[in-house]
Amino acid sequence: MPKMTADELDGFLRSNFPDREGPLMRVEVIDDMAAEVRLPYHEMHLRPGGTMSGPALMLLADSAVYVALLGMIGPVALAVTTSLNINFLRKPAPADVIGKARLIKLGKNLAVGEVSIYSDGSDTMVAHATVTYSIPPK
Amino acid sequence: MPKMTADELDGFLRSNFPDREGPLMRVEVIDDMAAEVRLPYHEMHLRPGGTMSGPALMLLADSAVYVALLGMIGPVALAVTTSLNINFLRKPAPADVIGKARLIKLGKNLAVGEVSIYSDGSDTMVAHATVTYSIPPK
Amino acid sequence: MPKMTADELDGFLRSNFPDREGPLMRVEVIDDMAAEVRLPYHEMHLRPGGTMSGPALMLLADSAVYVALLGMIGPVALAVTTSLNINFLRKPAPADVIGKARLIKLGKNLAVGEVSIYSDGSDTMVAHATVTYSIPPK
Amino acid sequence: MPKMTADELDGFLRSNFPDREGPLMRVEVIDDMAAEVRLPYHEMHLRPGGTMSGPALMLLADSAVYVALLGMIGPVALAVTTSLNINFLRKPAPADVIGKARLIKLGKNLAVGEVSIYSDGSDTMVAHATVTYSIPPK
Repeated sequence: MPKMTADELDGFLRSNFPDREGPLMRVEVIDDMAAEVRLPYHEMHLRPGGTMSGPALMLLADSAVYVALLGMIGPVALAVTTSLNINFLRKPAPADVIGKARLIKLGKNLAVGEVSIYSDGSDTMVAHATVTYSIPPK
Repeated sequence: MPKMTADELDGFLRSNFPDREGPLMRVEVIDDMAAEVRLPYHEMHLRPGGTMSGPALMLLADSAVYVALLGMIGPVALAVTTSLNINFLRKPAPADVIGKARLIKLGKNLAVGEVSIYSDGSDTMVAHATVTYSIPPK
Repeated sequence: MPKMTADELDGFLRSNFPDREGPLMRVEVIDDMAAEVRLPYHEMHLRPGGTMSGPALMLLADSAVYVALLGMIGPVALAVTTSLNINFLRKPAPADVIGKARLIKLGKNLAVGEVSIYSDGSDTMVAHATVTYSIPPK
Repeated sequence: MPKMTADELDGFLRSNFPDREGPLMRVEVIDDMAAEVRLPYHEMHLRPGGTMSGPALMLLADSAVYVALLGMIGPVALAVTTSLNINFLRKPAPADVIGKARLIKLGKNLAVGEVSIYSDGSDTMVAHATVTYSIPPK
């Protein structure tokens, strides 16, 4: 079961990523091997055509798996992404985007998570990613 | 052969992505099916441990292929990324990062590019990505 | 809703892929935007250490999305894979493997599916893939 | 520099993968952090439309990186693929296919390789893959 609450993870992100790109994401749900993270809408993430940018969605995907992982192993700031694969499925509306992450492997050295991304208030998936993290030895 | 120069592409990016995340990237080289793009160092891209963030490298990878593509087909702002895969190989130093993109397919509807990313002044690759773009019909 | 039954798809595969690598896969379930396909155990798929080979799992992932797609659009033999990403999570036992595919995008030209792979009789995921298919114009 | 020759690797594959899917691949070149592997044409790899199958190309991509890796670290049969990403660029002719692999990372626990795939006698790339291997502790 998770070792940290959503509030604790929110606080951890705020103190460790003070200059993170754009508005701070919010940890909304922490569950067993899972997390839900919100990237608030900001016009810096807009692209021509009025959609949320791909890099904003990649930032969200990366963060949602990071949060799900920290929820399980505790605050290990130095866990690093080793690979990320994302498919952009539909143009996301200019609104908050929500990343729902689920760990599909939590090993000693490696964790793999899968993320479904939605525009706020919609149940149509706008992007899907898989992300691999390397876990540093204690 | 390319339809736009590095300077023209620089100007296109500046006028179409005024609020793009972080400091503006610079188009340094445009060649046949290829481009080189620089992401200037900014502390907003730093992560715990003093390395450049993964999302910053993904932004660079995505942009380098976009620029290589626009170089070939001209300024089509609505080309959109359909998928991106990246492997993070080494921790990048807190310095500018350079993305060297090469198109390995340029079809009517789809383009695929491959990007090697280096820290400025080093010839050791820090990340490698493949990016697919959908090209809108004229 | 699906346009073909599991039996019809089984027959279609048998007549169109007579020389497909290894023992024929079996279509077990067809549902709305989803399919379940079984790759029977065969020692040609074994690897040193007694696990099922990576290429066998990739064949299964590719086929499961193909079957889910044909279920929705009917027998279009010329749909072709444009990209595949797979994470191998655990060593699969020397047994049948089951691929459970779900389409997360079904556009006019492109379909994207996600596949979870299990060893027969186990609910622990051994691999996870995303697969993109290009759909030929009619 | 490589620890094994192309002939030694060929022999190693033959004795460790006796039942490998389809006709045996041939190791043609071993170089520093690189390898070239040939998958002989066989009609079992054909698909409707007369092209070489995607799974055959994935098998080749996986094997070419495996061979480049073994060339550097010696015969470690239990190195396992942890992820593979492939883009299919053009329909390969019904002919031998050649995979040219290059290691872009060779760490203690993980290796990452990049593979360009060509039809025999052509210099147009038909597919491009990146493959990650986990290296077992000695």
